[in-house]
Amino acid sequence: MTIVMQDLAGADPALRFSPYCWRTRMALAHKGLAVETIPWRFTEKAALAFSGQGRVPVIRDGDRVVSDSWAIAEYLEASYPDRPSLFGGEAGRAHARFINAWADSVMLGGIARLILRDVLDVVAPQDRAYFRESRETRFRMTLEAVQAERDIRVAELRGSLSPVRLVLGGQQWLGGAAPSYADYIVFGTLQWPRCVSRFEILAADDPVAGWRERTLDLFDGLGRGAKTV
Amino acid sequence: MTIVMQDLAGADPALRFSPYCWRTRMALAHKGLAVETIPWRFTEKAALAFSGQGRVPVIRDGDRVVSDSWAIAEYLEASYPDRPSLFGGEAGRAHARFINAWADSVMLGGIARLILRDVLDVVAPQDRAYFRESRETRFRMTLEAVQAERDIRVAELRGSLSPVRLVLGGQQWLGGAAPSYADYIVFGTLQWPRCVSRFEILAADDPVAGWRERTLDLFDGLGRGAKTV
Repeated sequence: MTIVMQDLAGADPALRFSPYCWRTRMALAHKGLAVETIPWRFTEKAALAFSGQGRVPVIRDGDRVVSDSWAIAEYLEASYPDRPSLFGGEAGRAHARFINAWADSVMLGGIARLILRDVLDVVAPQDRAYFRESRETRFRMTLEAVQAERDIRVAELRGSLSPVRLVLGGQQWLGGAAPSYADYIVFGTLQWPRCVSRFEILAADDPVAGWRERTLDLFDGLGRGAKTV
Repeated sequence: MTIVMQDLAGADPALRFSPYCWRTRMALAHKGLAVETIPWRFTEKAALAFSGQGRVPVIRDGDRVVSDSWAIAEYLEASYPDRPSLFGGEAGRAHARFINAWADSVMLGGIARLILRDVLDVVAPQDRAYFRESRETRFRMTLEAVQAERDIRVAELRGSLSPVRLVLGGQQWLGGAAPSYADYIVFGTLQWPRCVSRFEILAADDPVAGWRERTLDLFDGLGRGAKTV
């Protein structure tokens, strides 16, 4: 049975830019599971009521409803043990959780400082006021101020990616010889700026950019085929 | 056969404070392997000539000589597969490499800004000039300047530990239900300031401090028994 996934979309329903939803899209592809994605906008809280919370991704797999990208990855690993593993065992899962926490607490904030105002230009009209107000409350400054001086600030973001760069100096994927959910965590996070902004956050000669190119090609170019602005 | 390990020591040969050597000590204990440690000082490069390089840890296991804490962990895992696993498989190893890179590129620099001058007070007399000169060249400032305003700077270090804190909110160990090499990477790194300085880098109510207490108790209190200043 096809899994149904609520996926954050912009004014253009083809523009899918949530870093969390991208982690889930890649995880589903890794497991070889078919998915039907439903475009969802920030203010459509009622459409997620069935999940008991108000954020995406949410998947419905037959009778099962699971929200939160990390919980979804764990659900898929437990429910489809005969498909390619996302974590490679219990320690692999536990260690990937650190990478997930790092991406959430370091990468997302750093990327927001580079492209958050650009997001406003792509969200659906009915989401614009919500997006500005909720993000300005969180950052305690205007969207314009969050993104100010990004040409200078981009060096900070690039510096914060050192752990990824160091690992890729010794192995092809964050998962080792083959991609794992660790790759999808970091890649999914990078799909956010790639889809919503023309501001390039990676230097062309950065090994992280080379790895992103390889990851864009996975699963018949699932990531590369994403609509961008 | 007992493994022999060159272990960084201070003027007091019982003071062992290298974050890398602590990772190896914990890994050896996890594998249940007996070890004889030999105190080594920064300037004793000739004593490591047999290893083809000049830094510790170095282990000699029968005919095999291995240097670099990460390479040692991989060596132990490959050579003693019947002992408790450090990585829990290939993905676990690959993902732990990220945590290792994060500890090296984020934790060590952050901790240096809090206690690097204190290290000078514990190194052997013959190491003092070398230590000051090499570290001042690396940081491009005096040891005193590196450590200046640490009462304010400590908040930065504590903030940078967010990924560890987030993970420990969901599981007992970085390795999941049981400690893995991921725990020893972060714990070993924290043994450095704990041994050389009375400046407390963790807040008492930080979950990271609670986890460190549990880790200090592992292996009959191996970490807790460490000599401190």
